[in-house]
Amino acid sequence: MLSVAKNLIIRSDRKIVLLVADGLGGLPRPSDGRTELEVAKTPNLDKLVSKGIIGLIEPIEAGISPGSGPAHLALFGYDPVEYELGRGVLEVLGLGMELKDGDIAIRGNFATIKDGKIIDRRAGRISTEENRRIISILKENIQRIEDVEIIWESGLEHRFALILRGPGLGDGVSDTDPQKEGLPPLPPEGRDAPSMKTARILSSIIERASKLLQNEEKANFILFRGISKKPDIPTFQDRYRMKALGLANYPMYRGLARLVGMDVPELGYEFERLIDYYEEHYDEYDFIFIHYKWTDKAGEDGDFERKVRYIEEVDSYLPRIISKNPDVFIFTGDHSTPAMWKGHSWHPVPVLIVAENAGVDDACRLTEREARKGYLGLRRSKEIMQIALALSGRLKKFGA
Amino acid sequence: MLSVAKNLIIRSDRKIVLLVADGLGGLPRPSDGRTELEVAKTPNLDKLVSKGIIGLIEPIEAGISPGSGPAHLALFGYDPVEYELGRGVLEVLGLGMELKDGDIAIRGNFATIKDGKIIDRRAGRISTEENRRIISILKENIQRIEDVEIIWESGLEHRFALILRGPGLGDGVSDTDPQKEGLPPLPPEGRDAPSMKTARILSSIIERASKLLQNEEKANFILFRGISKKPDIPTFQDRYRMKALGLANYPMYRGLARLVGMDVPELGYEFERLIDYYEEHYDEYDFIFIHYKWTDKAGEDGDFERKVRYIEEVDSYLPRIISKNPDVFIFTGDHSTPAMWKGHSWHPVPVLIVAENAGVDDACRLTEREARKGYLGLRRSKEIMQIALALSGRLKKFGA
Repeated sequence: MLSVAKNLIIRSDRKIVLLVADGLGGLPRPSDGRTELEVAKTPNLDKLVSKGIIGLIEPIEAGISPGSGPAHLALFGYDPVEYELGRGVLEVLGLGMELKDGDIAIRGNFATIKDGKIIDRRAGRISTEENRRIISILKENIQRIEDVEIIWESGLEHRFALILRGPGLGDGVSDTDPQKEGLPPLPPEGRDAPSMKTARILSSIIERASKLLQNEEKANFILFRGISKKPDIPTFQDRYRMKALGLANYPMYRGLARLVGMDVPELGYEFERLIDYYEEHYDEYDFIFIHYKWTDKAGEDGDFERKVRYIEEVDSYLPRIISKNPDVFIFTGDHSTPAMWKGHSWHPVPVLIVAENAGVDDACRLTEREARKGYLGLRRSKEIMQIALALSGRLKKFGA
Repeated sequence: MLSVAKNLIIRSDRKIVLLVADGLGGLPRPSDGRTELEVAKTPNLDKLVSKGIIGLIEPIEAGISPGSGPAHLALFGYDPVEYELGRGVLEVLGLGMELKDGDIAIRGNFATIKDGKIIDRRAGRISTEENRRIISILKENIQRIEDVEIIWESGLEHRFALILRGPGLGDGVSDTDPQKEGLPPLPPEGRDAPSMKTARILSSIIERASKLLQNEEKANFILFRGISKKPDIPTFQDRYRMKALGLANYPMYRGLARLVGMDVPELGYEFERLIDYYEEHYDEYDFIFIHYKWTDKAGEDGDFERKVRYIEEVDSYLPRIISKNPDVFIFTGDHSTPAMWKGHSWHPVPVLIVAENAGVDDACRLTEREARKGYLGLRRSKEIMQIALALSGRLKKFGA
């Protein structure tokens, strides 16, 4: 958000709904040169497109494929480079842990050490079950060091995460993972006083954990990476004067929503529960973010047909979302995940905005090809929020 | 390139070829309202356009007509404002002189002085032959001052260039050209210690040259302008981890390519020799830049028909370039030189990218009008390199 907009925010009771189909943007398949959005039958979306304006958005900048973290921050109107999220923070959010101000988030993994050298950086990829058993030992025995609370959480296989919660902790701490087998683990080193405190706590955790795990066959050591602090990010309430709700099935997206101050209920892994909740609580919020994950998963798997079906599934929920008559409705993806690319890509993402007096174009389908000709043009993702604020009457005039 | 991309570069063996037709972009002629690219018959280009994606690029920013230096730096992915090239540096590159780290480059011109006042700032535009005779005198007699080597080179008519090569030289030195006849030459003044050293060397050169030239009828004095240092610019190797080849007929473009660390053979003034060399050495490089000069010359001359013929000539070379199957092929201009404008202009330049999974649009001709509707949209020239890096697998994901 530019410094311009920041000082122009005013309160309004008009509502904004942002529906994100993760990894929405695609690429043409060779058989007929059509993209996922072009193949999908989306009668509900098509009707909205005829009423709204469309365009293409770039999550970060030209050529940059974003992770989900920066891509969502951009859609929420934050500069994803200014508010860079550390790897530890994203890991912790992905495991559904709650981050508080001042918290230090860390990616951990189990390793095998022998004669002071790491001989397996992934502890033979122990099972997730095994991981849970070991984490429960650590949870029970390492809860607090000095005035710092230690919060552990299992991940998949050899991965876990932890949070250090306490006063005066810094995140300028080096990784302990030597990145190569056959080398001794590195000591955590802090580059300033608060970070030295973090390093001291981590050293002490490593020492205690090593004793607790000394008889484990594989997971007899722990390594730390991506030591990072919860970013000092203004909330929706402070920044936009909006009470916001975040609805997502996966912990990472709930975590991102919580990071910017949204209320975030846990509703399980069925998308329909999100829509039920949306209908029930619509009146309580100024802004509602709804996240649909499955389009991205199909793209990552390179499954064109499945991505088409998931786009059609999103389409089938649109009538229920729209029946609440939000003043501003936005539909887009956080980034493209073309089935042809099998991963997050840099390709600009089609975006639709439906609102009174939004603008004018001739679009009737939301596709990559059509979006290029839309009223919104080609923009950075972070600009969409400013347009939504304007359309909902939340931005005063700049200058006289 | 933003700090974002800088930290995401990874090595890849996919190849990028950038073909620049200098001054490619044009404007419609009054007779039929068609531009140079619209009139030209370009069957080979048309085929590539159907497979690729197109758009428009702005070399610097809206309304800014660039010189060749910044326009090429932008295509090479460097911010042309951050890496501003001094006038001395461009002059020296244009004369084919090699610049080394720490070198000071200077534009010089011969002048006529009488009773301590400059009465002709161009020494009556002496002939280039005359210029060469005088420069050979200076070359022989002024080769070194203190620990600084002096390298002279003739330009056209009254123009020449020199390089100061030695330790601890600065470029914060004022011009000696008073810009007006009837005034005495200005003394070179340095604004910091290294620049004072440069100023001292230049004063000494002026003193010695004045004695050597005192019996010349017209060129009896020398003036210095655009005193500038070789910019501290990262090479392709360091910045992109690419081994790069630059192929150009004119010294200025070879100089620019050398500045960013490309290998630059001297192959004379026939374009075909560049293509021969390209074919022979294709396998040795990750990135190949090919420069075609004549489209710009025709535009500068206001010769619409000749520019059309040159565009058709470039088109005729495309099959040889493409037969090597580069993973990413880019065709564009460094800037527009519309015949109707008779000079470099600010008008956005059509650009084509051909690569697997590049994107989707309906374009079949690369023209100003069609490019406006292309998938790439309207962008800054410097963004094209980031997209090429992404398409060649050289950019990791940003964030998680």
